[in-house]
Amino acid sequence: MTYKKFATDLAKQAGAIIRKNFKHGMQKDWKSNDTPVTVTDTKINSLVIAAVKKRFPTHDVLGEEESSRTNNSKYLWVCDPVDGTIPFSHGIPTCVFSLALVIDGLPMLGVIFDPFMNRLIFAEKGKGAFLNGKKIHVSNHGIKNSVLDWESPSLMTKLVETYKNCLPVKLNSYIYGGMLVAMGELVASMYSWHFAHDCASLKIIIEEAGGKATDLQGNDQRYDGKVKGMLISNGVVHNQLIKIAKTHRSLFFGKTGNGEFQF
Amino acid sequence: MTYKKFATDLAKQAGAIIRKNFKHGMQKDWKSNDTPVTVTDTKINSLVIAAVKKRFPTHDVLGEEESSRTNNSKYLWVCDPVDGTIPFSHGIPTCVFSLALVIDGLPMLGVIFDPFMNRLIFAEKGKGAFLNGKKIHVSNHGIKNSVLDWESPSLMTKLVETYKNCLPVKLNSYIYGGMLVAMGELVASMYSWHFAHDCASLKIIIEEAGGKATDLQGNDQRYDGKVKGMLISNGVVHNQLIKIAKTHRSLFFGKTGNGEFQF
Repeated sequence: MTYKKFATDLAKQAGAIIRKNFKHGMQKDWKSNDTPVTVTDTKINSLVIAAVKKRFPTHDVLGEEESSRTNNSKYLWVCDPVDGTIPFSHGIPTCVFSLALVIDGLPMLGVIFDPFMNRLIFAEKGKGAFLNGKKIHVSNHGIKNSVLDWESPSLMTKLVETYKNCLPVKLNSYIYGGMLVAMGELVASMYSWHFAHDCASLKIIIEEAGGKATDLQGNDQRYDGKVKGMLISNGVVHNQLIKIAKTHRSLFFGKTGNGEFQF
Repeated sequence: MTYKKFATDLAKQAGAIIRKNFKHGMQKDWKSNDTPVTVTDTKINSLVIAAVKKRFPTHDVLGEEESSRTNNSKYLWVCDPVDGTIPFSHGIPTCVFSLALVIDGLPMLGVIFDPFMNRLIFAEKGKGAFLNGKKIHVSNHGIKNSVLDWESPSLMTKLVETYKNCLPVKLNSYIYGGMLVAMGELVASMYSWHFAHDCASLKIIIEEAGGKATDLQGNDQRYDGKVKGMLISNGVVHNQLIKIAKTHRSLFFGKTGNGEFQF
């Protein structure tokens, strides 16, 4: 079984669970960081750990709800069981399963599955990015009349002050927004937290779709621990958006100054 | 044929068109206010005008893309063919059809249809609000650990400064967010523009679901012309949110001071 088949089979299995469990008035708990978690998140996270242990017993797993890093391997499967638990648990079907194979800090393979619209995105280093088997590419739009997923409220204010005719959305599923950038629908997606599980798959997918992915200062970074936010874009608008984040650095870096973000 | 059957049949017909036309890389034009319009918007708007002319020839229609007010009637069908054209035309399935029967400025019947998740919301004055025939009710949550749809970027910054543990989303479909408030999923939805087609159906639906709907200053208003924004909520959080809007009034009222909003 190839990495590709392993990852895409797992994505479809996870997607079926997400789709089945999406319902009105969903039960959720609230984590210490004031974000919700559901049985769907923990169930899929366990499924991924079990699958990796069985098929690639020398590899490790970094998951949003649970990790298994006992092998201290440079092969790390980075998983967000439900990226977008906020929308998922509040009646909004914009959430996805995400999985990346990160080797020595660098994502080499990524899969995203949107079980509501049946969109499977897959990319592998050097082989392009695909939506349900068809090659996808980022757009070549500038910022005017473009839609961006923009997760930080304070930076959104600065964005619309700078570019009055762009259209920010805040989906609360960073990987969902990033998937749309890779498909050419959105021009950029901005993430202002520090979790690798929220962005590892996007690094490889966006680059294979012809776009750009950096931290919020415009630098490369590893995806096997904490990240310094992330900006992915079609490349055209990247430097303009990094400039906003750099100019207003104090808005999103927390008081400790150690890479913890306010949003 | 009752008003109810007329409105819900039309909603299902419109929803089928929305669902069929949702596709990757959709063609769109940009209006003078820098928002997109698609053939789906204009087609459904025309369908509504034709249907009202045929069935209720003495009534008028106020639509997002086209109106027909030649009868100068106090019976006005207020329609948003695709509320959420931004998400609809950018690969995000969070958009709905919306129709209200407004009599002398007051919405008396409202229907919302989400064709992606097959959610039909209906309310009629004094008869309750329903999701696919089942009675719905707003939640009784406070702001902590709650999700709100919040369309204004500058007010979103003020919101999270005031209430650090609430979770604002910006869906760019005000009626979609409002539908979720009526269902008890979100606690509030805030709209900072001035179009009646963006909110008329919500006025009756949210009130029949036990919630509250006012303009952004907390006052009642008519829904047959320009509105002064809108806040709908579960009632519990209404005054807290109106206070933010009032405190930062200068952020969203435009320079002309005539009720035109910046966002």
